[in-house]
Amino acid sequence: MGRTSDARERLMQAAGELWHTRSYGDVGVSEICDRAGVQKGSFYHFFPSKRDLALAVIDETWRRVGEGEAAAILTGSGPPLERVLRYLERGLEEQVRMREATGATPGCPFGNLLVETANVDEVLRKRLDRLFDDWTALMRRALDDAVAAGDLPEVDTGQAARALLAYVEGLSVLVKAKHDPRAVADLIPPAIRLAGGDPEAVRAATARA
Amino acid sequence: MGRTSDARERLMQAAGELWHTRSYGDVGVSEICDRAGVQKGSFYHFFPSKRDLALAVIDETWRRVGEGEAAAILTGSGPPLERVLRYLERGLEEQVRMREATGATPGCPFGNLLVETANVDEVLRKRLDRLFDDWTALMRRALDDAVAAGDLPEVDTGQAARALLAYVEGLSVLVKAKHDPRAVADLIPPAIRLAGGDPEAVRAATARA
Repeated sequence: MGRTSDARERLMQAAGELWHTRSYGDVGVSEICDRAGVQKGSFYHFFPSKRDLALAVIDETWRRVGEGEAAAILTGSGPPLERVLRYLERGLEEQVRMREATGATPGCPFGNLLVETANVDEVLRKRLDRLFDDWTALMRRALDDAVAAGDLPEVDTGQAARALLAYVEGLSVLVKAKHDPRAVADLIPPAIRLAGGDPEAVRAATARA
Repeated sequence: MGRTSDARERLMQAAGELWHTRSYGDVGVSEICDRAGVQKGSFYHFFPSKRDLALAVIDETWRRVGEGEAAAILTGSGPPLERVLRYLERGLEEQVRMREATGATPGCPFGNLLVETANVDEVLRKRLDRLFDDWTALMRRALDDAVAAGDLPEVDTGQAARALLAYVEGLSVLVKAKHDPRAVADLIPPAIRLAGGDPEAVRAATARA
């Protein structure tokens, strides 16, 4: 059961895993406490409500997969459009890993929560809307670099980054429909077209490098 | 309360509206019966379970918005890529109408259900996966016509149609994030790029017609 001082972290980890592989509505506080090995009476010492736990899980997950992984790839080294493809491929690999580890096809933890709660919890919706804006900004950095490098025409990169985010969220929905992340692998390169780029040219440049 | 013989239809309509504007998990059989003005005891005369009601609602909704509206626009008259844009615009108008009528931003009724149930109800997932395949086939018909008319290069229209469906589902997620369908209006023309087309050329041809 681990140390008592870990209880808050255990609750967050249990909630994140259960919500991501099932759904927010399907998993309540009691089941999260059971999985985390924390007494239900202690739960409210850490979180006033299920929503507060959700907000903490969103923040922690974004720090890891957004400010951590996405920023490292999208604003890191390498040709900018190749970074975008690498980022999408990395996301798919993570879906495959989770599918093998849990048997579930989790999709996007943020999109899932948003779809489920947008019309019934305005606090969660606003938090996720802000997160989507931050995510869009990270993708835009790579697209701005691509325009500067002459790898893209002079497109509206803010609009193209929002289109790219929509596409990523949609791929996550298709992954769930097929219960198989690999079923959308061939749909990753066309993402570059949304920004006015040519996927074949990006692949050819990568192969030459 | 209407006639007793309408009870099945009233249950389906109430469930469709409540699930679409809230969520599947958030609305149970009791509330659906209340809204429909049907005794809870009668519910199980019509539907063995909540899932069976969901399957009936999915079939009925697809008959109306898929085999009805989507097929009429996507396989109807007019230049093929213009049909695609008209179809996406029609979907956005329907979101605006529902936002004004209900105060909710419903998004896609099929994508919502899928995101929420894919990992916890294999029967619903398989039904929705089949529906997504049928939807993809309708979009592909317009893209095939576009290739035949020389409005698109010789792309893999099956892949392009799946990419288009992903994008449509993603736009529905963004609509919910912004709580405003109009926030994604400018993202409709770039959909044409996913199939290797040029949105500007489609607009220019439409303006000339």
